[in-house]
Amino acid sequence: MNRLGIDLGGTNVAAGIVNDAGEVLYRYSAKTDTKSERSVVGSLSKAVSSLLEMSGISADEISVGVACPGTVNSVRGVVEYSANLPLCGTDVAGMLSSETGVDVSRIYMANDADAAALGEYRAGAGRGAHDFLMITIGTGVGGGYISDGKILTGRNHSAGELGHTVIVYGGEPCGCGRRGCAEKYCSATALVRLTKAAVAECERRGVKTLMTEIAEADGKFSGRTAFRAADRGDEAGAAVVDEYISYLSCALTNYINIFQPEVLAVGGGVSNEGERLLEPLRNRIYGEMYNKRQPESFYTKICRAELGGNAGVVGAAMLGL
Amino acid sequence: MNRLGIDLGGTNVAAGIVNDAGEVLYRYSAKTDTKSERSVVGSLSKAVSSLLEMSGISADEISVGVACPGTVNSVRGVVEYSANLPLCGTDVAGMLSSETGVDVSRIYMANDADAAALGEYRAGAGRGAHDFLMITIGTGVGGGYISDGKILTGRNHSAGELGHTVIVYGGEPCGCGRRGCAEKYCSATALVRLTKAAVAECERRGVKTLMTEIAEADGKFSGRTAFRAADRGDEAGAAVVDEYISYLSCALTNYINIFQPEVLAVGGGVSNEGERLLEPLRNRIYGEMYNKRQPESFYTKICRAELGGNAGVVGAAMLGL
Repeated sequence: MNRLGIDLGGTNVAAGIVNDAGEVLYRYSAKTDTKSERSVVGSLSKAVSSLLEMSGISADEISVGVACPGTVNSVRGVVEYSANLPLCGTDVAGMLSSETGVDVSRIYMANDADAAALGEYRAGAGRGAHDFLMITIGTGVGGGYISDGKILTGRNHSAGELGHTVIVYGGEPCGCGRRGCAEKYCSATALVRLTKAAVAECERRGVKTLMTEIAEADGKFSGRTAFRAADRGDEAGAAVVDEYISYLSCALTNYINIFQPEVLAVGGGVSNEGERLLEPLRNRIYGEMYNKRQPESFYTKICRAELGGNAGVVGAAMLGL
Repeated sequence: MNRLGIDLGGTNVAAGIVNDAGEVLYRYSAKTDTKSERSVVGSLSKAVSSLLEMSGISADEISVGVACPGTVNSVRGVVEYSANLPLCGTDVAGMLSSETGVDVSRIYMANDADAAALGEYRAGAGRGAHDFLMITIGTGVGGGYISDGKILTGRNHSAGELGHTVIVYGGEPCGCGRRGCAEKYCSATALVRLTKAAVAECERRGVKTLMTEIAEADGKFSGRTAFRAADRGDEAGAAVVDEYISYLSCALTNYINIFQPEVLAVGGGVSNEGERLLEPLRNRIYGEMYNKRQPESFYTKICRAELGGNAGVVGAAMLGL
């Protein structure tokens, strides 16, 4: 069976036909038409028909997987709720089947973070692992846990909201309504907040920091500002990196103490720092986790996600496996 | 097949022959002989032989499950490490088989918190649930997660240390080496600490609190001191209960956002407060969890564990199911 994966986002639809090794053979990308429920499904149909035409594959020779932000009932093929798309109790699988001619039994759906985790598990950083945890650090902090090929969805398809676990009791207010969520301290957004606060503090004290000129050269403060300043010996920048890694290692140690996965992969923009981020992170986590006295061969392998922006498409395509 | 379960503790060995409904038909209890690895296994053998004699069942008609504190390799039948028992890389299943004549293929082992969770899942508060989370609140905070009949053990048999997840970044130092673990704010020990601190503060300010006289009548400060004072209108007692429930709901909301189990059962001494604890806990959690806007039928059911001190024996007996 050929596999087609769609990563449905609030802005873009990315899709592809993917082989069993997780390579994207044909690729499609377009803006999401977010006017209505029907137009969103129309965006999906267009991705399917375009890819079938590109590849010369017919609708009865393919399985289709859709990764979607929000609460996705993978059993019924229904998007229960999505904050960024006009889908609510929408039978996406049924509607997509009627529009494309792909039998509904070959249409699979999952939450987008879960699909990305599955992509890495099947064809990326989690390949060969029995159990695998993926943390995506972007605007927010997303999580996906897979054991023995099965995604942890919970009974209500809302599980794995690892970014919405409190690590700072009574801390920063979070969009989810709680205070002190991991997302408010470990996301790229949080790193930028820490960076700006440190720069403001430097200004207040009349101390120079390279962060200011790096942000000016880049045109903005970003997740890399403090890292680049620290690399060039800037003390305030190094302190921001340290503080950020301290929060992130706190959250990741929590997840390891809960899941003890064979592999934990870190994805998203901040993971582009590579070993610059991962090495100090490992040092802290391995010194702090509950099983630190076990032989090192028992430790969770902590690495960078491998598929980058393709993880959603690849994982969606693999949903039918 | 008849089922025998043993709950091996640092002080006592409790054991029983358990039927499929989770009823303990024959019961055995004795002190654990903790002198050596061999003497601990001897304590287990004695439990098996005594129960076989009591029941008239022979060694080839029974399966034996052992629940043990520490890191238990359930696949190899080996206790990798236990803080409270002289077991380290000990082939408990093999040794117990040679001593009792029960074939090693019918000896099962698990971590004690996991076994207790399995007992509740099969025959207690989690009966009939697809996925189930059990939190035991005692000296510490233990956790066990079961989905589709399978215990979450992680690749290294150390998973499910839910008490050792930080909720107060930089908070109280914990025995595990971290700071601010849920265990330091949600255990019965933590509740007693909060109670004593509030009483000391009342004394400092020259304010009377019923907590003092309740503790005197009980002979000690305990997990019930603040609850009983609050029940009688004591403001300082009510504030302690409120603070404790705020921490506990924070931790439990974290676990729900991660697992979204069908049922979450609270066990251990503090759960004896029943609805006095559970009702305000539910109110907070249901108002705070990530999926609070889903229909209520999707909410995790939060209830009290049912098997009390029997959960370990029952769960151990069910390991072979």
